[in-house]
Amino acid sequence: MSRVFNFSAGPAALPEAVLTRARDEMLDWGGSGMSVMEMSHRSKAFIAVAEKAETDLRELLRIPDHYKVLFLQGGATLQFSAVALNLADPDSVVDYAVTGSWSKKALTEARRFTAANAALNMPESGSPWGPVPAVDDWALSDNAAYLHYCANETIAGIEFPFVPESGDVPIVSDMSSTLLSRPLDVARFGMIYAGAQKNIGPAGLTIVIIREDLLGRARATTPTLLDYEVMAKSGSMSNTPPTFAWYMAGLVFEWLKDNGGLEVMARRNSDKAGKLYAAIDSSQFYANPVHPDCRSWMNVPFTLADNALDAAFLTAAEDRGLCNLKGHRSVGGMRASIYNAMPEAGVEALVEFMAEFEKRHG
Amino acid sequence: MSRVFNFSAGPAALPEAVLTRARDEMLDWGGSGMSVMEMSHRSKAFIAVAEKAETDLRELLRIPDHYKVLFLQGGATLQFSAVALNLADPDSVVDYAVTGSWSKKALTEARRFTAANAALNMPESGSPWGPVPAVDDWALSDNAAYLHYCANETIAGIEFPFVPESGDVPIVSDMSSTLLSRPLDVARFGMIYAGAQKNIGPAGLTIVIIREDLLGRARATTPTLLDYEVMAKSGSMSNTPPTFAWYMAGLVFEWLKDNGGLEVMARRNSDKAGKLYAAIDSSQFYANPVHPDCRSWMNVPFTLADNALDAAFLTAAEDRGLCNLKGHRSVGGMRASIYNAMPEAGVEALVEFMAEFEKRHG
Repeated sequence: MSRVFNFSAGPAALPEAVLTRARDEMLDWGGSGMSVMEMSHRSKAFIAVAEKAETDLRELLRIPDHYKVLFLQGGATLQFSAVALNLADPDSVVDYAVTGSWSKKALTEARRFTAANAALNMPESGSPWGPVPAVDDWALSDNAAYLHYCANETIAGIEFPFVPESGDVPIVSDMSSTLLSRPLDVARFGMIYAGAQKNIGPAGLTIVIIREDLLGRARATTPTLLDYEVMAKSGSMSNTPPTFAWYMAGLVFEWLKDNGGLEVMARRNSDKAGKLYAAIDSSQFYANPVHPDCRSWMNVPFTLADNALDAAFLTAAEDRGLCNLKGHRSVGGMRASIYNAMPEAGVEALVEFMAEFEKRHG
Repeated sequence: MSRVFNFSAGPAALPEAVLTRARDEMLDWGGSGMSVMEMSHRSKAFIAVAEKAETDLRELLRIPDHYKVLFLQGGATLQFSAVALNLADPDSVVDYAVTGSWSKKALTEARRFTAANAALNMPESGSPWGPVPAVDDWALSDNAAYLHYCANETIAGIEFPFVPESGDVPIVSDMSSTLLSRPLDVARFGMIYAGAQKNIGPAGLTIVIIREDLLGRARATTPTLLDYEVMAKSGSMSNTPPTFAWYMAGLVFEWLKDNGGLEVMARRNSDKAGKLYAAIDSSQFYANPVHPDCRSWMNVPFTLADNALDAAFLTAAEDRGLCNLKGHRSVGGMRASIYNAMPEAGVEALVEFMAEFEKRHG
C-alpha cells in the first residue's frame, strides 16, 4: 500500500493519523467490543465522543458561549434552504454577496423562500476574478434579515479577504471549504455553516454555528429537522445523528489540537498556498486568474498554456501519486485543493512535478 | 479485543465481516492509495462503489425497473416531512395507520403540511399491543393522496403482519427496522423508506425506493434536496452524498448476497425470533405483551416479573458480553434487537443467560 497525495476538492484527503486511528478502532472502540458506528447515539460512550468533539471544536475556534454548535446532515446545500426557512419570512428581504458558483446556488435556493437580493454579483461584474469590492460599493438592502456570503468559493478558488461590515444585520457565511484553515472571530457572525468533507471529516456531516438569539425564528412550514432551535434543544439528536462522521470529525479536531491548533494551520496553509502560487506566477506556462487579494489558500485552480496538454499533465501527475488535479468542469484546467490534511511535502512534490512538466513540454 | 453481542436498536450491530473489510480498506481502497471517504463522489472509483451498491440492493429486493432507489441523508425522520411535501398538497387528505411511536411521529409531522387522518390508531384503541385490525375496520379517507404505515415499530416491537390493501392509493411505508430482514414485494408500494442504522449500514444514510410516477409532485416550497425528482434525476448526487455510509451499505448488501440473500435471512430471523419468544413464553419470569400475530422479528421487548431486578439483569448480561439490552425509556424493561447482523449464537447466548438469571432470581 502506498498512500497518494490527494488534491480532491471534496470529499478530500484526511490526515493519515486520523484514518489509522479509525482503522485501529473499527472493530472495538475503547474496549467496548463494538465499533463506534454500532453504538446507540444515546449511549454513554457515544455521548462522550460527541461532547468531546464539540468541546474541541469550540476550543479550536474559540466559539463564544452564546453560540450553539450543531452537527447536522444534508451538506451545505441543505443549509441553503434551512438558512432562509429559519432566518427569513416570506416577506423578508435578505442580501447575498455572489462571488462564484456556490454563493450563486445559495442565492437561487433562498429566492424560493424569500426576496433575496444580490447585493454583490462578482461573476457578472466585469471582474469575476476579483478583487472583491468593498462593502460600500455593494447594493445592500434596507433592513435585510441577514447578509450571506461564501467565505471560499471552492470552484473558482476565490477566498473572501475580509468579513463584511454589516451593522446590526447578522452575517451568515458558508465556510465549507475554509473553516478550520485559520483562526476566525466567530463573534462577527450570526451563523456559520460548513459541509464536513473538506477540512472537518467525511461527507454526510454538516456543522452549524449559530448565535442563540437567531434560534426560534423558523417559519411554520419548516421541516422539523431543519429547525435550528429544535436541533439546538436536542443537542443535534432529535433523531439519530450521523454518528460515525461525528466521531471522525472529533478525531480531526483532536489532530488539529495535537498539531498546534489553527494558528499553526494558518501558517502552514499560507506557506503551502504561497509556494504553489509562486510556482504558477513565476512561470509562463501556468496561470491562475484570481486577483492576488482574494486567492484561496485552499483551492488553487490553474491552467496550462496549451490545454491540449491537460490530459498528459494529469496522467503524468497520477503516475507520481499526485491525484485528482483535474479542474472543475465549469472552469477546466487544473485545481489543487490543499486543505489542512495536505502535507507540505504534497505541495512540494506538485511544484517539483509542475517544473519538470514545463521543462519537458513548455 | 473481544467483540460483544450488541442488541442495540440502532445504530446497531454490523456484520463483523463488513467491519473487517472496512478496516482493511480504510487507508487504501482497491489500490487507489486513498480511503473511500477521501474520494470525490464524482470519481470513477466512487461511482463504481455507488452503482454496485444500488445494483445489489435491487437484486436483493428484486426492485422493479419502474422504481428509483435514492441514497439520501437525514434519517427516516426527515422523510416524515419529505413524504408529505412530495406526495400531498396543503389541501390533500392523507391516511396514516398508527401502530406505535414512530408512525405517530410520522403522522404528527405530516399534519404540519397537510390534512393527515389517523385511519388506524392502535395505541388509543384499547388493544395497543395488537392484533392489527383488518383494513376493513380502518377509518380510511376518500381520495387519500397516500396511505402511510410503519412496517415495524422498533420501540414496542410490533411488526405489521400484512401489506394493507389500498386500491389505487399509493402505500408509503417506513421500513427502517425491517427492510432486508425478509423478501418483500416492492410492487405493492408507492414508496418505501428506511434509515440505514438497523439492517443497512451506519447512521447518516437513508434509503428511498419510489415508484417513478410519484416523482415530480413536490410542492413549490419543498427544499430542493428534499424533492425526490431532483434527487432521482441526479442519481442522489445533487450535492455530495454520504459517501462512506453508502460504501458501507454496499458492503452489507454484498454480505447479504454472500449469505444467501433475503430468503436465508428470513429463515434465520424467524428462527432467532422464534427461539427468543419461546424462551419468554415458556417462562413465568419473563413476559412480552405483543399479540403473537404482530410480534416483531427484529425488536423483542420483554419485562422481568420484578422490575427491581432490571439493573441486576443488565449488569449480569453485560458481564457476559450481552450488551444494550435496556428497553426504550417509554416502555421500560428490556429490548433485544436482533437484526440480520445478530448471529444465532447471540440469541442462544441470551436465551441461556435468561434461563440462568431466572433460576437464580425467579
